[in-house]
Amino acid sequence: MSVSEPAALPIPIADLAEARARLTRRRGFEEPDLSPRMRAGVRRVFGADLTAIEVVDRIVGNVRDEGDAAVLRYAAAFDHAEAPLEVPRESWRVALARLPSDLRSAMTVAAERIEAFHRKQLRTSWLEWDADGALGQLVRPLERVGIYTPGGAAVYPSSLLMTVIPARVAGVGEIIVCSPPGPDGEISPLILAAAEIAGVSRMFRIGGAQAIAAMAYGTESVPHVDKIYGPGNIFVVLAKRRVYGQVAIDQLPGPTETLLIADEHANPVLVAADLLAQAEHDPMASSILLTTSGVLADAVLAQIPEQLKNLERADIIAQSLAANGVIAIVPDVATAIDLANDYAPEHLCLLVRDPWAAMPLVRHAGGVFVGEDSPEALADYVTGPSHVMPTGGAARFFSPINIGDFTKVISIAAANRAALRRLAPAAIALAHAEGLSAHAAALERRVRPERGDET
Amino acid sequence: MSVSEPAALPIPIADLAEARARLTRRRGFEEPDLSPRMRAGVRRVFGADLTAIEVVDRIVGNVRDEGDAAVLRYAAAFDHAEAPLEVPRESWRVALARLPSDLRSAMTVAAERIEAFHRKQLRTSWLEWDADGALGQLVRPLERVGIYTPGGAAVYPSSLLMTVIPARVAGVGEIIVCSPPGPDGEISPLILAAAEIAGVSRMFRIGGAQAIAAMAYGTESVPHVDKIYGPGNIFVVLAKRRVYGQVAIDQLPGPTETLLIADEHANPVLVAADLLAQAEHDPMASSILLTTSGVLADAVLAQIPEQLKNLERADIIAQSLAANGVIAIVPDVATAIDLANDYAPEHLCLLVRDPWAAMPLVRHAGGVFVGEDSPEALADYVTGPSHVMPTGGAARFFSPINIGDFTKVISIAAANRAALRRLAPAAIALAHAEGLSAHAAALERRVRPERGDET
Repeated sequence: MSVSEPAALPIPIADLAEARARLTRRRGFEEPDLSPRMRAGVRRVFGADLTAIEVVDRIVGNVRDEGDAAVLRYAAAFDHAEAPLEVPRESWRVALARLPSDLRSAMTVAAERIEAFHRKQLRTSWLEWDADGALGQLVRPLERVGIYTPGGAAVYPSSLLMTVIPARVAGVGEIIVCSPPGPDGEISPLILAAAEIAGVSRMFRIGGAQAIAAMAYGTESVPHVDKIYGPGNIFVVLAKRRVYGQVAIDQLPGPTETLLIADEHANPVLVAADLLAQAEHDPMASSILLTTSGVLADAVLAQIPEQLKNLERADIIAQSLAANGVIAIVPDVATAIDLANDYAPEHLCLLVRDPWAAMPLVRHAGGVFVGEDSPEALADYVTGPSHVMPTGGAARFFSPINIGDFTKVISIAAANRAALRRLAPAAIALAHAEGLSAHAAALERRVRPERGDET
Repeated sequence: MSVSEPAALPIPIADLAEARARLTRRRGFEEPDLSPRMRAGVRRVFGADLTAIEVVDRIVGNVRDEGDAAVLRYAAAFDHAEAPLEVPRESWRVALARLPSDLRSAMTVAAERIEAFHRKQLRTSWLEWDADGALGQLVRPLERVGIYTPGGAAVYPSSLLMTVIPARVAGVGEIIVCSPPGPDGEISPLILAAAEIAGVSRMFRIGGAQAIAAMAYGTESVPHVDKIYGPGNIFVVLAKRRVYGQVAIDQLPGPTETLLIADEHANPVLVAADLLAQAEHDPMASSILLTTSGVLADAVLAQIPEQLKNLERADIIAQSLAANGVIAIVPDVATAIDLANDYAPEHLCLLVRDPWAAMPLVRHAGGVFVGEDSPEALADYVTGPSHVMPTGGAARFFSPINIGDFTKVISIAAANRAALRRLAPAAIALAHAEGLSAHAAALERRVRPERGDET
């Protein structure tokens, strides 16, 4: 790491109101400005200084209207990629076979754990009969889903496992993956190997908004899907929002965040290590520590520079801590949970003496990681729950990826004659009040046939 | 009704390929052009010919930045409304008390049925312990939701019941409703009465994109919500999509559709009545009949002009049938279900001898209405399932409103020491492969403390 000035570490906040204000500053999905590099790319490809939304509108519209021709045009312009768009299954098998055996085994372990956890979530169709007939819900998997996997310098095969395997467990018929190729025109072998292990159906070397549009509308090469998942750059994320309605989408991802609650019993070495692990994701990642112990806070702060010396991504970590790191001293664990609920973190870690007593108080978080032996870093890879979790406060209204993301319900209504006779008057009255006389007539013909023209 | 030329009725399609092609024409959420009246309104308020998306972007941005001041400005411009924005609870009670008793009783019956059906769907948190520790999911309701209810000439109090009651059953903390006032500056007493019965928390007389923006971001008067539901005009729908990410939203609604499957045992009088009931919603509504019996098809077609004579909305019905009506003869019920799956109708009605034999074949629909005694018209008001169902083919990926729309899950990961020791090597290998060395370090400190700097 650089030997410039030491990392600007968070100064512990002792005032509760200040801590709450700091944690409840508006977050949420914000459309960032384009970086200079992106702006240059936009000028080059479109010949004008379009905003990100304008770029996405144009790409999505063109792919929808022109199919593969537009996809190839954008692929050539942005990714220096060419036809064919599809990556043959054989190359995934080869990638898996060539993977170092420790990695292949690691991916297999992860896959088994993710699958086992998601099998526990499977819902069944149900039907209840009573004196009025039957009511229920059919549960059906989505038919075809599309998953976007970013490319670039750092790829995350674990993210592919964490999205594809729940889809497969849910019974989704076909799982499509799009990923931009690297400079060699190929998708990373780590991604291909993960695809083979996870059970992907088809894979295409397409990136950006054009990938999202291709999956939403379908092209000659790419089948259209029912729902699109996965993180990506600003164009990918805006394209997802743009096609919502044509398809369903999952969440609009933002920078990752962890809120760790620790009491005096926690090990400051591990608390520091967990905060640094979170911060290494991204200069905009958030690492937050709420503790009942000023002594622990000081010990953690002393640990950070020591541990930073040994970490490759020390610069990113330092930026993250300076921008979004928070340490606050709180009177008790219940208060910490209350603050955590206000913040609605993606990851909530409990390093306290009695975490299960706190659990009923938890209202908003993506995942809760309980105890020293169950750190977020373990769950990011192998514990079982999907690591794709809601960011930016979206834990108030979104869930981590789970079986429900890949299934839907169909309502069943099978009222019998007795129910019809008893309930029709109420329905008729409401239909008339709403000016829907043909609705009323459809019911009157059934219960008062002399009022209709029934022969 | 007018005595102009008779309604253009669908001509039965006997060719299966033609039927499939007709049913699989692209639907889905389309942004319609603005009507002349809307364009005039846009010019008046904005002084320019903005597109719907531009109008929405501007309104949403201004409400976000200026709060109530912007809301009042738009309310005055579009709805001729003024402060105060909130409708006091007392006026809802008065509206309910003044409701004709048959309507009050009808709404109460509907409310009870909707509540009972949704109580059956409640999910519970779960936790499973095994040799590796514990894994599970917490189930939590959303804290605050916002529901938009259109105003205008025709109001639908039933829609309010069908959205608010599932929210209340789910345990949502606060249910906000926004609705544009009528020319008298007030919200329809039918809506107020329904709000009182359903259990709404607060109500605001605001419409349009400004209502959506106010609920998404919060203003001085309107609390911000976590998720927004409800149909509306093009500005409302585009505003919902615009704020997605800041809040969650439900579906983007489109014209309603019903696909009815009937065999030779069905009563053509009732089949016709059900098709006409569907068509009266909207000139763009779709009424589709798939039948195994040419005789039934002919009898239904003969019924339609007869029944139309007695219906207020005959013009709308005629337009709908001409634009989107379909009748097709199919060889058997299984083929009909297959076509229905391709179409993915909002409503699927089964008027066949053995509907339960067909049920396992159903893959995509909002709701299935089984048998002559359980028509869609009954379920639109009182059978129990919410009548807010996915349109435009969205039944491929969305569900009708159900408890899941108002709840979320939080993953629980509580691995124990044995699991940590066994699984950490796999996680460490993956972390290194992904370039996340601080993740690896957080694990290594726990399993190989001599590798860290732990004191």
